[in-house]
Amino acid sequence: MPASELCFTSATDLVLMIRRKEVSVTEVMEAHLAQVDRVNPAVNAIVTYHPDQALDGARKADEAIARNEARGPLFGLPIAHKDLVLTKGVRTTYGSPIFRDFVPGQDELIVERLKKAGAISFGKTNVPEFGAGSQTFNPVFGATLNPYDTDRTCGGSSGGAAVALACGMLPIADGSDMGGSLRNPANFCNVVGLRSAPGRVPRWPSVNAWGRLSVQGPMARTVADAALMLSAIAGPDPRAPLAIREPGQPFAMPLERDFKGVSVAWSMDFGGLPVDPEVTSAIEAKRGVFEDLGMTVKPGQPDFAEADEVFKTLRAWSFIQGYGDLLETHRDRIKDTVIWNLEAGFALTGPQIARAEVDRTTLYHRVRRFMEHHEFMVFPVSQVPPFDVNTPYPTEIDGVRMETYIDWMKSCYYVTVTGLPAISVPCGFTSSGLPVGLQIVGRHEDELGVLQLAHAFEQATGTWKRRPTVAGA
Amino acid sequence: MPASELCFTSATDLVLMIRRKEVSVTEVMEAHLAQVDRVNPAVNAIVTYHPDQALDGARKADEAIARNEARGPLFGLPIAHKDLVLTKGVRTTYGSPIFRDFVPGQDELIVERLKKAGAISFGKTNVPEFGAGSQTFNPVFGATLNPYDTDRTCGGSSGGAAVALACGMLPIADGSDMGGSLRNPANFCNVVGLRSAPGRVPRWPSVNAWGRLSVQGPMARTVADAALMLSAIAGPDPRAPLAIREPGQPFAMPLERDFKGVSVAWSMDFGGLPVDPEVTSAIEAKRGVFEDLGMTVKPGQPDFAEADEVFKTLRAWSFIQGYGDLLETHRDRIKDTVIWNLEAGFALTGPQIARAEVDRTTLYHRVRRFMEHHEFMVFPVSQVPPFDVNTPYPTEIDGVRMETYIDWMKSCYYVTVTGLPAISVPCGFTSSGLPVGLQIVGRHEDELGVLQLAHAFEQATGTWKRRPTVAGA
Repeated sequence: MPASELCFTSATDLVLMIRRKEVSVTEVMEAHLAQVDRVNPAVNAIVTYHPDQALDGARKADEAIARNEARGPLFGLPIAHKDLVLTKGVRTTYGSPIFRDFVPGQDELIVERLKKAGAISFGKTNVPEFGAGSQTFNPVFGATLNPYDTDRTCGGSSGGAAVALACGMLPIADGSDMGGSLRNPANFCNVVGLRSAPGRVPRWPSVNAWGRLSVQGPMARTVADAALMLSAIAGPDPRAPLAIREPGQPFAMPLERDFKGVSVAWSMDFGGLPVDPEVTSAIEAKRGVFEDLGMTVKPGQPDFAEADEVFKTLRAWSFIQGYGDLLETHRDRIKDTVIWNLEAGFALTGPQIARAEVDRTTLYHRVRRFMEHHEFMVFPVSQVPPFDVNTPYPTEIDGVRMETYIDWMKSCYYVTVTGLPAISVPCGFTSSGLPVGLQIVGRHEDELGVLQLAHAFEQATGTWKRRPTVAGA
Repeated sequence: MPASELCFTSATDLVLMIRRKEVSVTEVMEAHLAQVDRVNPAVNAIVTYHPDQALDGARKADEAIARNEARGPLFGLPIAHKDLVLTKGVRTTYGSPIFRDFVPGQDELIVERLKKAGAISFGKTNVPEFGAGSQTFNPVFGATLNPYDTDRTCGGSSGGAAVALACGMLPIADGSDMGGSLRNPANFCNVVGLRSAPGRVPRWPSVNAWGRLSVQGPMARTVADAALMLSAIAGPDPRAPLAIREPGQPFAMPLERDFKGVSVAWSMDFGGLPVDPEVTSAIEAKRGVFEDLGMTVKPGQPDFAEADEVFKTLRAWSFIQGYGDLLETHRDRIKDTVIWNLEAGFALTGPQIARAEVDRTTLYHRVRRFMEHHEFMVFPVSQVPPFDVNTPYPTEIDGVRMETYIDWMKSCYYVTVTGLPAISVPCGFTSSGLPVGLQIVGRHEDELGVLQLAHAFEQATGTWKRRPTVAGA
């Protein structure tokens, strides 16, 4: 297999090939580093890069294999971590000039688990400043470009991760998602991003150990690869009191399942959101796939009445938990939209946050009752296709004006508020060749069902096969 | 066995005797109802009472046994539900005149589970108004009296439950605990109360489905009975998104365990709380029991610096979630202390609540690190013995003035804030014969460990044997 093909081999196949000694970890790492060297300058996905350290890790992994000491479900896979997660000894900027030179003294739990599972990091993937806004640009590293059209955004906040996957620079990548940050960039870049249930991937450190808005999760080019990665990062840890007490291992089992007779609710607009017709038609074109699986596809969705206010309130509140102190100390080095968020957070009252929690409960139960009749819901991931990379955020969709910089993400953050697991899986392309993803939402903590259905959909469509030309297809 | 002895037979034995047809469900129910009729007028624990309905249920249970259709781990046990939980068709007052005639149209999940497990309810147990303040009195039903001295309080808020257990009116009872409401009344009445981890006993309905301050849990005369009851009320339910995804069944297994070499931290004052010397000496007298179990008993505790402020903030905040609307509509029918709480809740700012969540996280991790060296911590349950029932709350302990009506409960609510499971188990008596409990706190979600250690302690001390004279010992 030529080195360039190793870069587009699935993670699942790579770990098998490494285990069978058909390829060395060093060969795999070298192939991916060569791809970074060749393609990254055109897209700016990897923003901190330590290839020598990665090659050293790869050599040690090969020595472990020689001693029959290779361990871990991700053994030998190259990875790069999102620049919002702490990496011991490796710069972590949050895309903020305030943290331009910040080198943490510890790994975040997800990084610790990925290392333990055998993955080897060569750097960090780009993010928006403090992860805010689903468009990956910041004053430290600039913008990350969509590999399917470098004049377009890759989405965000896990934008660098999505682009690196699409370009064959990485087989798996970690991301995080508050209002769509695992799903939207996957959707814009023709890869897979899973927003798991809060607690499925335990978080540490965390300013609020019980926060449920932002979650971490896997990204990959295939659903099976995302599931394999989830198996390594899920499971309890005493440092994360919110953690779900189930081991991650079952996610690594084969995802095949018979969906005959299973009901899926089909909604292209959440009951009234503006959606670009190019998005709608790309998804509608694949409705038959679910019918061919034998599923009952019924139009409809629950009423998401409270979702917008709940999300905006809790998001602003979580911003002051995480970054509140910075407003006083570094106001001049924070982007306007984040300042706006922080000020909104500081202005919140106790009763407003109480109302948000109560309304979130009301919404949870309404959606739960709806899902007694439907095991899954299908929605668009984003309401627009990838837009001009020089536009910070869309101000209008299908003739409707957006009131804030996050309003165009309602199709993602409405789902966030429910707490339900959701995946973005490649669905097709617009008429101009831009990727469109499809969002599958499952029942409470049923990531497995979501992965199984996404896998069945992927098997039937094989969308991934159209590689971005910038990656040397 | 005489009927009066059935009332002091353990729940574990009663279900076995019923299963073996050594006694009928009707006989068991009649014995307990006779005990209520005889003893309750002296203590006022049962405040809503429907014996005919209970006897009817007992007869149907006996018919089910005759048909070999008896099911459930609590099959045939009499129960009465705390008057803070919804009971379908049975008055639920919250101890408030506003709800004097409120008859819910549905059961709360814990009631549904207890019914499904085979328990048969004959009424409701008394509570403080809205469960606020650990002293059981309210304008609807008056005060519940301590059976060991009817001039004294039984504690609260699960006060009626604790008294009914101590007097042999019930073999098991449900309770709930925000700041000590399962532990303090158990402690004052010589019974067992387990504050489980949030989500262990799923709650529904709930205004905030993710609230972790107040939990529901089991009360009984023995640790094994509390564990048996927990096995029936624990386990996931889709209506409770916070629920821990483990089945309850393992809690019904034998609790025997070897504690040799296990470390327990021993603190009589949480590092500086005032504690009545009668409480301290009753507990210190039992320190040798842990040493005799082969445990390493080491003086010390983690620093609980943030606990007071965090608890008071989050408690006030949770009050407005639950009862905020009532302040506007029924202010004149709410007790002063609750009005004070609600007003404190309405005055909270977003940043204050954010600070409380962040501080709770800091405290959680400090305690977690402390417990890497100690599997358990032992504390007093309450800082005072049962006090005059005409005193709404202690205003001074060991010469230290209490600033609010809940300050005397710090020994309980400091533990609440950590989220760790904690049990109150009978320990001994003051010089005047008032019960004193001991609080065992375990690691994150380790109710099983807590139950096992409490069981070992109980086996070694056999404290329960001193019945209250009012119950006809």
